[in-house]
Amino acid sequence: AEFVNPFLSSFINVLQTMAQMEIKPGKPSLKKDAIAHGDVSGLIGMVGPTAKGSFAISFNKELALNVFRLMVGEEVEEISDDITDMVGEITNMVAGGAKRQLGEKGFEFSMATPIVVSGPSHTITHQVDGAKVLMPFTSEHGSAFIEICFNQ
Amino acid sequence: AEFVNPFLSSFINVLQTMAQMEIKPGKPSLKKDAIAHGDVSGLIGMVGPTAKGSFAISFNKELALNVFRLMVGEEVEEISDDITDMVGEITNMVAGGAKRQLGEKGFEFSMATPIVVSGPSHTITHQVDGAKVLMPFTSEHGSAFIEICFNQ
Repeated sequence: AEFVNPFLSSFINVLQTMAQMEIKPGKPSLKKDAIAHGDVSGLIGMVGPTAKGSFAISFNKELALNVFRLMVGEEVEEISDDITDMVGEITNMVAGGAKRQLGEKGFEFSMATPIVVSGPSHTITHQVDGAKVLMPFTSEHGSAFIEICFNQ
Repeated sequence: AEFVNPFLSSFINVLQTMAQMEIKPGKPSLKKDAIAHGDVSGLIGMVGPTAKGSFAISFNKELALNVFRLMVGEEVEEISDDITDMVGEITNMVAGGAKRQLGEKGFEFSMATPIVVSGPSHTITHQVDGAKVLMPFTSEHGSAFIEICFNQ
């Protein structure tokens, strides 16, 4: 929890700050076979001195388009390059915010560059032996999943 | 090229060793807007002392199922958990092989844990400022893309 909470609070903060959007965390799942679904996802690899892992935010299409509308003030109908860029930036901001909070607690890690995947209802599986937390989020503007996984 | 070739030769070697499959590299693209398509992709983040980046192998469904058949000796019709696990392992092996070759040349980096994305005809965009190489591969058993991207 100590490791996961900074990612969740960072996501809530980023959407509040950038899009004035309230998003609510649901019930976390630790199940090995729980799978995140989304239409556009930002992924980022993390490498620390003792652990490595990966982090993903999966947006459904509705949420991605609404965040864009609220951040940029422009309506788009489909997941375009602008949307994938925005998802990459949000992923970077969320991971960066979590990294700062974790750094203050003595957990240091480096982030790889973000990768954005786009495609209707794709699924993501993190190939790790260790802990895996999947957290659903809901809002009146759509839904998202955050997944945080670590080896070790 | 010095940085990219180890990934390409490592991919060719892994498929040859694991599935006795010949796969041929096509014409590389350095275009910013070139996009890899695939039905199942393995992604891995990389963090070095001076550069960070990301690496992806995207398989079309045909190739993924054929590699599985040739590696495991079992026919499957759909992209199952066994297929995503295999794609994660191949991604790890290819990146690990490239890491070894690059380490011998003095380029050191750490790899994050692999992430596998599954979904018909998804696209992948790497969020980097720096170099980006997209390499198509073809074989009688299906096709693939490798993408290697670095910030600097």
